[in-house]
Amino acid sequence: MGLLTNRKTKENTIIIGCGRLGANLANTLSDKGRSVLIVDNDKGAFRKLSSSFGGIVVSGDATEIKVLKEAQIENAAAVVAVTNNDNTNIMVAQMAKELFNVQHVIARLYDPERECVYREFGIDTICPAVLSAKEIDKLLNISDIWEDSI
Amino acid sequence: MGLLTNRKTKENTIIIGCGRLGANLANTLSDKGRSVLIVDNDKGAFRKLSSSFGGIVVSGDATEIKVLKEAQIENAAAVVAVTNNDNTNIMVAQMAKELFNVQHVIARLYDPERECVYREFGIDTICPAVLSAKEIDKLLNISDIWEDSI
Repeated sequence: MGLLTNRKTKENTIIIGCGRLGANLANTLSDKGRSVLIVDNDKGAFRKLSSSFGGIVVSGDATEIKVLKEAQIENAAAVVAVTNNDNTNIMVAQMAKELFNVQHVIARLYDPERECVYREFGIDTICPAVLSAKEIDKLLNISDIWEDSI
Repeated sequence: MGLLTNRKTKENTIIIGCGRLGANLANTLSDKGRSVLIVDNDKGAFRKLSSSFGGIVVSGDATEIKVLKEAQIENAAAVVAVTNNDNTNIMVAQMAKELFNVQHVIARLYDPERECVYREFGIDTICPAVLSAKEIDKLLNISDIWEDSI
């Protein structure tokens, strides 16, 4: 049993966008036994989900409140907005945070310059280019070829 | 002074692809005082480099040996292939490793399924979707909302 009293009612993760990242994440969380719901406005996108995916799919535009309600956002512990459109991700993330008080909200932003703004709103952002740059920097530094050793 | 005897002659980093990630990386390495050379077949792409960028730009198709030679690949300690095309990145990475014996070769691959293959060839690969999924997983786990605490 968890420590949080609302654990039983608020353990859903809602993923917005069933692209490569969204589907991968949905499959992983589902395989871990977590309760997952994934939203995409293209029904064909759900083909990316694995045959063992045990979550719920909702077809619709996640920037519409009725779609978020259909996705049971009131019962969501986390919303992860990973469509290919930064504006959509930002909009959904803000709705999740401001309108539905979702505790953990994460948005993928391709444009790293927007990142710092949303952190202030309590929205975690991830930027693939920044993560990639950090990883490359780590790989290059590990080599020690440029570092002075004395 | 570094420990490696060839440090003086082989300290260049060659970046292939001046997109958001390539330019960001080139600017960062240049700011750190490292010797950087960046290649793109679109001259307009170099506009993404900062005004303080102190490296060299080479315009051309990096899958051509003469372009890689123009980019002084013989003096490169590292080659980082980050164009938007996985096939280009793989091809350049393999040329750098096999033809020019570059010590550190990193390729960005959007398709995570190819990743394991190239690791065998001594090519480090980074996949933005995998990095993003790991980061989201980390952010979700930090919350402890799904983890049993007893």
